Amino acid sequence: MTTAQHSSEGTLTVVGIGPGAIDLMAPRAQTALEQAEIVVGYRTYLDLVRSCLNPASTVLSSAMMQEIDRCRKALELAEEGKRVALVCGGDPGIYAMAGLVFELARTMNTSVPIDIIPGIAALNACAAILGAPLMHDFAAISLSDLMTPWELIEQRLAAVAPADFVVVIYNPKSKKRTDQIVRARDILLASRAPDTPVGIVSGATREHETVRLTTLAAMLDEEIGMQTTVIIGNSQTFVWRDKMITPRGYSRKYGL
Amino acid sequence: MTTAQHSSEGTLTVVGIGPGAIDLMAPRAQTALEQAEIVVGYRTYLDLVRSCLNPASTVLSSAMMQEIDRCRKALELAEEGKRVALVCGGDPGIYAMAGLVFELARTMNTSVPIDIIPGIAALNACAAILGAPLMHDFAAISLSDLMTPWELIEQRLAAVAPADFVVVIYNPKSKKRTDQIVRARDILLASRAPDTPVGIVSGATREHETVRLTTLAAMLDEEIGMQTTVIIGNSQTFVWRDKMITPRGYSRKYGL
Repeated sequence: MTTAQHSSEGTLTVVGIGPGAIDLMAPRAQTALEQAEIVVGYRTYLDLVRSCLNPASTVLSSAMMQEIDRCRKALELAEEGKRVALVCGGDPGIYAMAGLVFELARTMNTSVPIDIIPGIAALNACAAILGAPLMHDFAAISLSDLMTPWELIEQRLAAVAPADFVVVIYNPKSKKRTDQIVRARDILLASRAPDTPVGIVSGATREHETVRLTTLAAMLDEEIGMQTTVIIGNSQTFVWRDKMITPRGYSRKYGL
Repeated sequence: MTTAQHSSEGTLTVVGIGPGAIDLMAPRAQTALEQAEIVVGYRTYLDLVRSCLNPASTVLSSAMMQEIDRCRKALELAEEGKRVALVCGGDPGIYAMAGLVFELARTMNTSVPIDIIPGIAALNACAAILGAPLMHDFAAISLSDLMTPWELIEQRLAAVAPADFVVVIYNPKSKKRTDQIVRARDILLASRAPDTPVGIVSGATREHETVRLTTLAAMLDEEIGMQTTVIIGNSQTFVWRDKMITPRGYSRKYGL
């Protein structure tokens, strides 16, 4: 009886834990972690929320690059009737696990209820740290060509550069992928001024957070890695007192 | 002495309260509200966080469209030595108050410390409600031409449409602005299939939340208003069990 009841109650909650600082994780995410029978996640993210986990929960951690196994395991455990929480850094819906979970659920043809709890994404957190760079239309582009053809990424960069979008770059560089950020910079430089402000944030809200303000011309001199988000301003973006700010248009319309 | 000390401690914290549900507001935002001597905000957002306010705080509410007065007042009170919290819906850094605060601070040449607390933006919340539509590169575009020339908005729509970005549309329509969403739809339709999935969310996470899944061809039949966010899929976006999902590319690379 208990087993049967459990079986009908299996659920998968995909939990956005935010950028890293515990006090930027939504209470709804905290509750989902507390109520989970099983918590599944990539080791680094589990470490960030260790203090929030229920001692009664089973914790299954895995290494990087094992996303598919991790998501499939989480779905299988939910199908077995468990209340499962899958931990994601940032927002599960932005370059994280939400999409893969649904793709796998479709392949498995499961009817397990899947709930996504949004989180403060890297782009939200980095913008707040830098000042207000995303106040006008922006595009988020991942430079990882592991699963996306580079030609498409380049096409997207070339589309948004002259249309004066603020550009948020995810996955700018890894040990093996070092050239993409150079090419992205060059594409933007073809239609944007060399002194366009650029903000570079690594490890946002974590202990090792670093923040640098530079320019499109000089940005490649800065250290950029796996945990770095790069925000490139539009033609109106300015720097004032170490803050990067994109005006919304109040000044033009109303004077300030 | 006390006065002088206060005077040197004036601060302005721009607080993202998230989409509306209290349990999606970060604890850091909650703390900032509790610690504020003065809380300033647009009435609707103050109502959403009423239960979180410190009874000892002074609350200054204002009507819509008074953003400049509201931000200037908040800065002036901080200059007078008060700990001021300025309440913003969603994320202060995405089409909200963070940019205007810095623009005004520069004009006023104030040295008041300004801190931005990020929040779960409408785009994060609506994506989670819809499933996982933002899993690949996306662009956020506001259709409000009150402060941005329509030609530029149109140029941006025309740039991202063929480059196959998922498109998040803010401010799609108001009582006075009814034509912009029609033109935006037509621009996207010129380079995207009529059956491209479109998610329409109004009042995300609030009591009157409504969620509709439709297509690019049919989207104008749905009710769209001031509190609506529209997410238009890319060429890979699909609908499965009432969820809108943009694949990341795992299937192509690994098979699933």
